[in-house]
Amino acid sequence: MVLRRLAGASAGGSPSPAAAAAAAALLLRPALTRPISTGFREERDTFGPIKVPTTSCGERRRRDRCRTSTSVVSASGCRCPSSAPLECSKSAPLRMLKCHVCLKGSSLGHLILKVNMEYGLNPTIGKAIMQVAQEVAEGQLDDHFPLVIWQTGSGTQSNMNANEVMHIAAATEINSRFVPSLEQLHKSLHSKSAEFQDIIKIGRTHTQDATPLTLGQEFSGYATQVKYGIDRIVCTLPRMYQLAQGGTAVGTGLNTKKGFDVKIAAAVAEETELPFVTAENKFEALAAHDAFVESSGAVNTISVSLMKIANDIRLLGSGPRCGLGELGLPENEPGSSIMPGKVNPTQCEALTMVCAQVMGNHVGVTVGGSNGHFELNVFKPMIAAGLLRSLRLLGDASVSFEKNCVKGIQANHKRISQLLHESLMLVTSLNPKIGYDNAAAVAKKAHKEGTTLKEAALSLGVLTEKEFHELVVPEKMIGPSD
Amino acid sequence: MVLRRLAGASAGGSPSPAAAAAAAALLLRPALTRPISTGFREERDTFGPIKVPTTSCGERRRRDRCRTSTSVVSASGCRCPSSAPLECSKSAPLRMLKCHVCLKGSSLGHLILKVNMEYGLNPTIGKAIMQVAQEVAEGQLDDHFPLVIWQTGSGTQSNMNANEVMHIAAATEINSRFVPSLEQLHKSLHSKSAEFQDIIKIGRTHTQDATPLTLGQEFSGYATQVKYGIDRIVCTLPRMYQLAQGGTAVGTGLNTKKGFDVKIAAAVAEETELPFVTAENKFEALAAHDAFVESSGAVNTISVSLMKIANDIRLLGSGPRCGLGELGLPENEPGSSIMPGKVNPTQCEALTMVCAQVMGNHVGVTVGGSNGHFELNVFKPMIAAGLLRSLRLLGDASVSFEKNCVKGIQANHKRISQLLHESLMLVTSLNPKIGYDNAAAVAKKAHKEGTTLKEAALSLGVLTEKEFHELVVPEKMIGPSD
Amino acid sequence: MVLRRLAGASAGGSPSPAAAAAAAALLLRPALTRPISTGFREERDTFGPIKVPTTSCGERRRRDRCRTSTSVVSASGCRCPSSAPLECSKSAPLRMLKCHVCLKGSSLGHLILKVNMEYGLNPTIGKAIMQVAQEVAEGQLDDHFPLVIWQTGSGTQSNMNANEVMHIAAATEINSRFVPSLEQLHKSLHSKSAEFQDIIKIGRTHTQDATPLTLGQEFSGYATQVKYGIDRIVCTLPRMYQLAQGGTAVGTGLNTKKGFDVKIAAAVAEETELPFVTAENKFEALAAHDAFVESSGAVNTISVSLMKIANDIRLLGSGPRCGLGELGLPENEPGSSIMPGKVNPTQCEALTMVCAQVMGNHVGVTVGGSNGHFELNVFKPMIAAGLLRSLRLLGDASVSFEKNCVKGIQANHKRISQLLHESLMLVTSLNPKIGYDNAAAVAKKAHKEGTTLKEAALSLGVLTEKEFHELVVPEKMIGPSD
Amino acid sequence: MVLRRLAGASAGGSPSPAAAAAAAALLLRPALTRPISTGFREERDTFGPIKVPTTSCGERRRRDRCRTSTSVVSASGCRCPSSAPLECSKSAPLRMLKCHVCLKGSSLGHLILKVNMEYGLNPTIGKAIMQVAQEVAEGQLDDHFPLVIWQTGSGTQSNMNANEVMHIAAATEINSRFVPSLEQLHKSLHSKSAEFQDIIKIGRTHTQDATPLTLGQEFSGYATQVKYGIDRIVCTLPRMYQLAQGGTAVGTGLNTKKGFDVKIAAAVAEETELPFVTAENKFEALAAHDAFVESSGAVNTISVSLMKIANDIRLLGSGPRCGLGELGLPENEPGSSIMPGKVNPTQCEALTMVCAQVMGNHVGVTVGGSNGHFELNVFKPMIAAGLLRSLRLLGDASVSFEKNCVKGIQANHKRISQLLHESLMLVTSLNPKIGYDNAAAVAKKAHKEGTTLKEAALSLGVLTEKEFHELVVPEKMIGPSD
Repeated sequence: MVLRRLAGASAGGSPSPAAAAAAAALLLRPALTRPISTGFREERDTFGPIKVPTTSCGERRRRDRCRTSTSVVSASGCRCPSSAPLECSKSAPLRMLKCHVCLKGSSLGHLILKVNMEYGLNPTIGKAIMQVAQEVAEGQLDDHFPLVIWQTGSGTQSNMNANEVMHIAAATEINSRFVPSLEQLHKSLHSKSAEFQDIIKIGRTHTQDATPLTLGQEFSGYATQVKYGIDRIVCTLPRMYQLAQGGTAVGTGLNTKKGFDVKIAAAVAEETELPFVTAENKFEALAAHDAFVESSGAVNTISVSLMKIANDIRLLGSGPRCGLGELGLPENEPGSSIMPGKVNPTQCEALTMVCAQVMGNHVGVTVGGSNGHFELNVFKPMIAAGLLRSLRLLGDASVSFEKNCVKGIQANHKRISQLLHESLMLVTSLNPKIGYDNAAAVAKKAHKEGTTLKEAALSLGVLTEKEFHELVVPEKMIGPSD
Repeated sequence: MVLRRLAGASAGGSPSPAAAAAAAALLLRPALTRPISTGFREERDTFGPIKVPTTSCGERRRRDRCRTSTSVVSASGCRCPSSAPLECSKSAPLRMLKCHVCLKGSSLGHLILKVNMEYGLNPTIGKAIMQVAQEVAEGQLDDHFPLVIWQTGSGTQSNMNANEVMHIAAATEINSRFVPSLEQLHKSLHSKSAEFQDIIKIGRTHTQDATPLTLGQEFSGYATQVKYGIDRIVCTLPRMYQLAQGGTAVGTGLNTKKGFDVKIAAAVAEETELPFVTAENKFEALAAHDAFVESSGAVNTISVSLMKIANDIRLLGSGPRCGLGELGLPENEPGSSIMPGKVNPTQCEALTMVCAQVMGNHVGVTVGGSNGHFELNVFKPMIAAGLLRSLRLLGDASVSFEKNCVKGIQANHKRISQLLHESLMLVTSLNPKIGYDNAAAVAKKAHKEGTTLKEAALSLGVLTEKEFHELVVPEKMIGPSD
Repeated sequence: MVLRRLAGASAGGSPSPAAAAAAAALLLRPALTRPISTGFREERDTFGPIKVPTTSCGERRRRDRCRTSTSVVSASGCRCPSSAPLECSKSAPLRMLKCHVCLKGSSLGHLILKVNMEYGLNPTIGKAIMQVAQEVAEGQLDDHFPLVIWQTGSGTQSNMNANEVMHIAAATEINSRFVPSLEQLHKSLHSKSAEFQDIIKIGRTHTQDATPLTLGQEFSGYATQVKYGIDRIVCTLPRMYQLAQGGTAVGTGLNTKKGFDVKIAAAVAEETELPFVTAENKFEALAAHDAFVESSGAVNTISVSLMKIANDIRLLGSGPRCGLGELGLPENEPGSSIMPGKVNPTQCEALTMVCAQVMGNHVGVTVGGSNGHFELNVFKPMIAAGLLRSLRLLGDASVSFEKNCVKGIQANHKRISQLLHESLMLVTSLNPKIGYDNAAAVAKKAHKEGTTLKEAALSLGVLTEKEFHELVVPEKMIGPSD
Repeated sequence: MVLRRLAGASAGGSPSPAAAAAAAALLLRPALTRPISTGFREERDTFGPIKVPTTSCGERRRRDRCRTSTSVVSASGCRCPSSAPLECSKSAPLRMLKCHVCLKGSSLGHLILKVNMEYGLNPTIGKAIMQVAQEVAEGQLDDHFPLVIWQTGSGTQSNMNANEVMHIAAATEINSRFVPSLEQLHKSLHSKSAEFQDIIKIGRTHTQDATPLTLGQEFSGYATQVKYGIDRIVCTLPRMYQLAQGGTAVGTGLNTKKGFDVKIAAAVAEETELPFVTAENKFEALAAHDAFVESSGAVNTISVSLMKIANDIRLLGSGPRCGLGELGLPENEPGSSIMPGKVNPTQCEALTMVCAQVMGNHVGVTVGGSNGHFELNVFKPMIAAGLLRSLRLLGDASVSFEKNCVKGIQANHKRISQLLHESLMLVTSLNPKIGYDNAAAVAKKAHKEGTTLKEAALSLGVLTEKEFHELVVPEKMIGPSD
């Protein structure tokens, strides 16, 4: 509303400053007529009179809060009393949005105002708006942002506070926090891959022993997954960079002036240093929130990648005596106060929990995205909050996983080597020399008798010990031949 | 831990009170040795010395918080600073759990203690435990419950605070809040069904005009959906009433005494007045959280029902001039300050948003539930939080929807009657009298010429006006014939 | 249509047999007027003339197929040409439905007819209907069931063939095939649990070594999960047993006689030997498909259980040399032609793939279930097919898993014993004797030096060998004490 | 296997043609030694002797089918007998894969062979392989592709037939069928948008009357959604174009020669005319199927878009008398034989059902994608089939929707105009002239008395009729002002 109403005000104001003033006054009255001493004063609008706290900056806001309690939960931000419903804390994302509106938006508000003033908004009104924006930015008016996500109506109530801002919030979150978090994780995995490049270990397919690879190669797969994850989320940004601002209620841009949409997007782009543009089709931009669903889909894919990586690491680190035991994970907290070496893979557990929730959020976003009607999809608060939460959760979990787990992973050289050499998979190396049938016979004998391949081969007389050592060289099994 | 550790303590304590005391002391030391003046004192356990705030009640808790920061987010409950990560507020459900542990659990703690003492727990230790439990109950030790959902390890950290409590929390939430919320909604829908029992309206199948029914019948369908929803969630409770308590680490009950599990469940049942029993198989109870997935599935079905109801109501209430307009919804907040009669169906919008999120949470719970390993599914915090959130969200949204929407729905008699009589579907009434082909011809003519059925019938000369009125009686079309 | 049209015919027929005959004739004409020699004859109805193959039994059917191709795919059952779209085979479930209508339904058709005739349906018409039903039952008229799932309109086209039959199909599938499949799996897991009751093994929590349990106990957890799964699906049946039959188009029962709904449900119950009843509220029964969503939710929970079980088994059977290796899985097909002992856990892989698809189908069913409008949810074909597929897939996969995997699982006694005795978790047994701190010291020493507990304990001098053997008795660690 | 085994054969063949021959012979024996007269002959390999039908081309295939029945369902493609399990038809997608392997793959096989021969594969063996590939391509060996999706093991059995081919199949399906289907739909929606560009209608937000827009603008939103959908799926292709071919079992490329991976990808690219490249990291390419999850996410977003469009169209086309009635949908089949104008929106219903299933498939793909272990994700058959089905279903449904619905949509000019002028939303036009309060008063009066705005305005005396007509000009409300 701050954004849209201003746009409307300015547009109407051009042909008729008086009308613009009248329209804008609805918003501004409290700020303009703030009395001094009493706690309440009577205001009236087209709905009749209402008592308004003297510090109120927003008539509309006040009505939403005082007159009815239509929100599912009568939240009051983080200061929820113990009797408050569970989900009161769900206002958090809106707080963040507010941060975007405010902390950054202070200048954003000025930009919008500036664009409006170019179109002839009365400077006095302009100044008053600027003052309100400033107060918002400074957090003086926190109580005027009381609504929760589960408020009603496509965030229309929040639109008063923050509308297309949600595209800005998502794009900013992705660029300034989510991608850097993944980059940090990628860097660490890549670094581990280099650190482990010479450690040859048994490979496993179908959870069964397979041909060898290096631990570095295994980690290079993880690093690549994360790297592609970054590509995936970045690929969705072109749609997210499109702003509906200037479309007004149904996408036509009624009550704006030609060019306003382009200018406001340019101003946002300049302020955020991100390539925002005005949506080429405002009808799509308001009636659908496909861009959120798309980005959520990318985050979903990333959660799939991270679930796989975290699962592998906890299984490779299982033990201390009765698991695979190839990796040593950092001991962040005691797994068991009496049992040394029992290091619960808590970071893997936290990350996989987050991944599961992200997959769930994605379904919520998908369902919400598919249920729009006509010129407006009213599920926007839920959709935006779902995406923002997934971004924040998965980003934070990635950072924690990197810092408290990946960075400290150590290779259990002894165990890795032991498993590799006990494996029967090295038998494939004998194939070119003694033929497929003989090789199979060697492996069968070793398997049956619980011996090593060498013992079985020598026992069968198909090879000398020297020949065996020349043939069975794991180092030669970790890449294509020349 | 409070629960499990006590169990262990008591069990070990029987043959060896000294050992029990030693074990229990780990937990109790801070309480027993609380110094007066300094801010910190040095404690030590098998991990070495650590500085502990003098008000601390839990060594383990302190370590988890001070020594490392393994949690994804270093939350501190609701008092998160503005720089705190988005999800810090996710500790809310644990707060609720704590409420369960505390507000009720005070006596619950006493019960556990009582059962333990029956098995020979040293009374002095018992008294100390009781004191800690009391302090917890009174909220004096709030700072000792700092961990967030996305903590690691199956809630092992929370287990210290609250373990099987999660089954108790879910069953209690379902019985004391969720089902009553649905009952309130059912009652209101049922009441509306009675209120509207004589209002005959056009039916719609395939979003196309169909044979008539009463508005009361339509609402009876909604009421039945909610009624069955209650049946659905109640049907899942028998598995939820099974407590793992007494299974200890892997389900064997090691370190407990025979019968402890049964007694503790009986004590919980007595305290909560809900039919809790000890899980017949503790291995299943620890290794799987299927009971949560099952209940979440019931909540998912209920969200499907409510999504349908809310969708219908917003469409039937669409308008004021260009929609279906059969229902008038209560005007909780202005849809448009200038446009009278434009009542945004905000409650329907809030409810459907919640439904979408519940569907998403269900997928999260499903994914978490399917990813357990061996003797423990470590996704428990996420799973339990997902279910609890869905219960709370959908329950609260149902109450709000009932109070702020359903209760105030009014039938637009005039509009309903107009649509009914303009409809061509009443033509089926002519069928028995003038035959199928003639009836079809009447309808075709009316459709083509935009007239009423009566006009078309009279014009075709297949009926007199008197005959028409005798035949076309919507009141006779809303039920089977005798 | 067979069902509903007959109902209408009978109802209309009571006051006016002629009208009933006229209505029924639409369906019956082709059967009654079947010419002999030419390939096509001209028929006409209210839509005008149409060429109908002389063997056609259904005008409506023919129009749906010949005049337009509204179905997404122009399927023709299983005999799809190679150029047919991918999903043509999706008609399979309808084939099954047809089987229900036909193979069983032959008598079902007779029952409906019988009920109708009690209400005065003209016996000649009745006889003709019976003949058509018979032909359908015998599969002579296969070509008249050409539509695919992705047909349009709530299965209205299929309604002509099979409507409430879908409830009957689901309940029958659950009772006659799905539950027996799970019972077979449960029996086998239970049997394995007994077979393995004396095999003590290491427990694992957080994928880390934990206190011991028996392999039988571990399998008892799996068996219990399956047993509860049966409870879960059975709990949903009361809603599935409710039949909408008799509600006609919008639930009012227009054109039926009072009592028809009850009688027809009784007839179905008698025929199927399942407790079908008429839906207490036909509006709910037509406007919502919540019963399918609910049952799908139970199947989803079962897939969660089976995913866990299959995952455990493949990990416990991982190897042959470099995995956990506690279980030997039956070798159904070669994992590697050269590598003995590499037994790919193919049954686990198939089952978990099915579980993942079932979870997906459940979301599809959920989305479809939530998108109904007014008096009819038109997603019925997709919803019913989704549930039926999940039931069939998961049931068949359970049978295959039982037969080709569970039944043949063998315990690797040697490996299990080796891991158990190498573990450090047995240290907790020392606790009561030597105290917590000494026990922790023993474990630490063993961990650090890679020795056994006994070696460490003796080296530290805290116990004699005799005392060690008296204290460390895994057999005493698998249950509560007396 | 055709692909991978050949790679291995060639690589091994270079240093030792005899070994290569031995390895290749396993595959080729049947083809090389095909006897003439008897139905069976005895073959043997390292597993012992087995009776093989004389027409068999694949030993491995035969064993999988004859010796055990490890597949969940013993499918035989489309020719499933009536007793076959429901899901036998699930082999369809593999048939399609086969088509890719065969119809195209004939030359693909040649290319692989050609690359292999460059590396020294014995020409005689090469020729034999070529012959088998040819037979496969010609469909002579259909019976040798009997396995179903729910086979086990990451498609290892199918790998024998088709491995990385799945990436090729998905990319080909997207390029050759899915995107063209969407382009066709986009073109048609765009065309309708132009056709309807001058039809001004009421806008609707919150399902309530809002400011006007043109029907063309509304359709431009739909067209844009589809256009962005194309962008979305295309954005995922860079990861899909990466081929694992050359990575062999665990990604190391063991048994291939350096450069083989690059050359084979180049050959595939040349043959398919799509920019395939060798995966930069083969470990990621085998251990994860993230590319499928990513593409499935894009298809999921597109299903969200299409669900919205189809929902709008069925609601805008609702009627004929008691709905919104703004659109006339093509009458593809009778909605009701007696009720003219009742045109069931069957195409919308089919499309939305497909969308719901696609959302479900996406969850299945997500769950499968997240459950890989170590060097191989064994859920590949399910994942690939899920994506391929979604692509095919949604593509075909889009084409059908375009052809049978969108193309034939007609605007009901009269109804649209009537609703627009009855609306009270035009009151905002009066705002600049008579002020906000007066405008609101006019609207309130009209709303209360059920009159038009003009009547109310004149009655209140705030405007002359001439002024009203000058101010209330919907044509001026559909865009920003100059």
